[in-house]
Amino acid sequence: MIKTDPPIETKTAYEMTEWLARYGQTERGGVTRLLYDQKWQDAQQALMRKMEESGLVSYFDDAGNLYGRLEGSQKTEAVILTGSHIDTVTDGGKYDGAYGIAAGILALQSLFEQYGRPKQTIEVVSLCEEEGSRFPLTYWGSGNITGLRKQDHIKELKDTSGTSFTEAMNRAGFGLGHFRQAKRDDIDCFIELHIEQGEVLERENKSIGVVSHIVGQRRYNVTITGESNHAGTTPMPYRKDAVYTAALLIQTLIQRAKETDPELVATVGRMEIKPNIPNVIAREAVFSIDIRHSQELLLESFSTSVFHTFQRICQEHGTGLHIDNWMNEKPVPMCEKLSALSIDILKREQTPYKVMTSGAGHDSQVFGRYVPTSLLFVPSHRGISHSPDEYTKAVDLEKGVQLLTKTLYELAY
Amino acid sequence: MIKTDPPIETKTAYEMTEWLARYGQTERGGVTRLLYDQKWQDAQQALMRKMEESGLVSYFDDAGNLYGRLEGSQKTEAVILTGSHIDTVTDGGKYDGAYGIAAGILALQSLFEQYGRPKQTIEVVSLCEEEGSRFPLTYWGSGNITGLRKQDHIKELKDTSGTSFTEAMNRAGFGLGHFRQAKRDDIDCFIELHIEQGEVLERENKSIGVVSHIVGQRRYNVTITGESNHAGTTPMPYRKDAVYTAALLIQTLIQRAKETDPELVATVGRMEIKPNIPNVIAREAVFSIDIRHSQELLLESFSTSVFHTFQRICQEHGTGLHIDNWMNEKPVPMCEKLSALSIDILKREQTPYKVMTSGAGHDSQVFGRYVPTSLLFVPSHRGISHSPDEYTKAVDLEKGVQLLTKTLYELAY
Repeated sequence: MIKTDPPIETKTAYEMTEWLARYGQTERGGVTRLLYDQKWQDAQQALMRKMEESGLVSYFDDAGNLYGRLEGSQKTEAVILTGSHIDTVTDGGKYDGAYGIAAGILALQSLFEQYGRPKQTIEVVSLCEEEGSRFPLTYWGSGNITGLRKQDHIKELKDTSGTSFTEAMNRAGFGLGHFRQAKRDDIDCFIELHIEQGEVLERENKSIGVVSHIVGQRRYNVTITGESNHAGTTPMPYRKDAVYTAALLIQTLIQRAKETDPELVATVGRMEIKPNIPNVIAREAVFSIDIRHSQELLLESFSTSVFHTFQRICQEHGTGLHIDNWMNEKPVPMCEKLSALSIDILKREQTPYKVMTSGAGHDSQVFGRYVPTSLLFVPSHRGISHSPDEYTKAVDLEKGVQLLTKTLYELAY
Repeated sequence: MIKTDPPIETKTAYEMTEWLARYGQTERGGVTRLLYDQKWQDAQQALMRKMEESGLVSYFDDAGNLYGRLEGSQKTEAVILTGSHIDTVTDGGKYDGAYGIAAGILALQSLFEQYGRPKQTIEVVSLCEEEGSRFPLTYWGSGNITGLRKQDHIKELKDTSGTSFTEAMNRAGFGLGHFRQAKRDDIDCFIELHIEQGEVLERENKSIGVVSHIVGQRRYNVTITGESNHAGTTPMPYRKDAVYTAALLIQTLIQRAKETDPELVATVGRMEIKPNIPNVIAREAVFSIDIRHSQELLLESFSTSVFHTFQRICQEHGTGLHIDNWMNEKPVPMCEKLSALSIDILKREQTPYKVMTSGAGHDSQVFGRYVPTSLLFVPSHRGISHSPDEYTKAVDLEKGVQLLTKTLYELAY
């Protein structure tokens, strides 16, 4: 049930995220705001009003990104941009994306109230889309701004109900020529405040994570070909057992990942067996590999070495091996100077922080390829995200806003 | 296309199995005869005529088992029974079951032609069902004869089209009171000739397998409970990865099976992962275990020892373990005296043979619990069975018939 009670306070990051979570609130206490749907539109409209109330000049672009602008006194074109994405996964949490927008508005509001107009223009952005949860395309918001995504990319796309991307965009009042063009060349830097979506900060009792890199990511499908045979009549030495070979490979991969580097992660999350019958030796096993690290060289040497061992094991067991590399995203380094600025503030305030990598993708990954970008984390309780159980303590939310405010102050005033 | 050409010769085991394979012939060259279906009825009727032509007195029982009787001169009640099952899996082979019936008819025919009436009555049986391929129940033929299966067991059973077992049985003209009651107390011994459905005999260049035991079989479902987490943001030491633990357990099981006893087989043929998504650490992995051996004590000690190691591994990795033992079939020893009789003949004829276990279940497994039973194998090319590619060389088929004929001669004349 959506509360329609008198306006709630939005003075703190906690209050602001609670307020924003009313738009798309689900029965389980989560949030569903899919790109261009009614809840999404309601949220963007509400944010627009909130920006105006906060003394910001608000505007949309053609893609549906919403900006709140605090004009600088110096007539430079270069804009300091902060924000995150407004869309969610289905029944997602209150903080993923939304927190970065809420924090940006609060930061700009308090800067304007305390210090008046900045020298350099600052804008907060509510990016229209990041998750890819309605249409099979991610980073539509940051991608439009940087030029990574174009209208061409959406021509064929439809959501699960058959509505085309273009139709959904037009119905919500967006599309080419409706507002300002989405692509920008005036962005000086981008700063994103986001929940960690992992449990490293909580486990290590840190309030803030300063991200050095968004990790590179490689994904593979590994197919093991064996021979189907009767589980009762085929002695062990005669077997070409795809499941057994797969078990050996998975063990090798995970063991090696653990030994190679503390930051390296390797995951086998998906596995399919054929024919998948208890009393038949499997003729095929297909499993996924997801490996991530901040250094491209390490990803390369690790995968080469592991796959070499895979080949040896398959040869020994008479099974076939096919490895399909279907995703290869390079690591994106964040801006060292921006990180150093935040770290100085954190040291000064004696706030416990950790320099870390981001194992998940974020809009900062897109911006980071074009402009100096900084990604800052606050802890996620038990690392839970994309769930109604997503939770960050109010005190941590506030610390993030404080850091963002001070960082923006250092940059713009 | 079913050939309706002039009657083909059925003088050899090869000819007889080819002839029988016309009833239920599939496009891929296999055979589909499911219990009580039209092809099954056609096959039983054709076999009945064949038995009569061969000088046997034929009759059905209430379950649909078909007998051909060669009356003995001594008025003892004790019948020597040979045969196998007429039903197949969907698109199965020409030899599985059918060969044992064909061989039985040929053996009785040639004994009668050469030696006239035996002292002791011999019967060949075309057992109505063994595979469980239409209804979820196996050994309906041998089970009715021995009393292991009763009409009570089928009350609730339906095939995939919704036809009840009883209805299918009645429509085919069978059921209580239609013919002789199925349960018998006059069987002296049972001898089954069957294809190996494994590749041991072919690999070892043996013509005949004399089965010492039908192995015991235990089946388990193993459930590993881990914790779902983000594949990018969860460092390796924090993980409770159900797939990784499953890989370690499977490796342990198979390695240990290989080391324990050459006759022991262990198979993981089925595996399901949850949520089964490439970038999510699995919260659950369920896999099947099928272990078989001729000695109950070894099955017990092996499973106890392996599951003890499973517990240790799961404890080390923080994952939960649940093992469900849903099948526990004890080994069934075949009759040593009957085996010795066949071995004497094989030695005399200098036929290469092997005393071996049967890793698959057969009607002999049911008979073996009630009467002295002998199971004899001929080689299966590449061990392929339950497939149109099932193949046994004509010369091997003939050697099996020779052995059966001579064994029956020794027993009955």
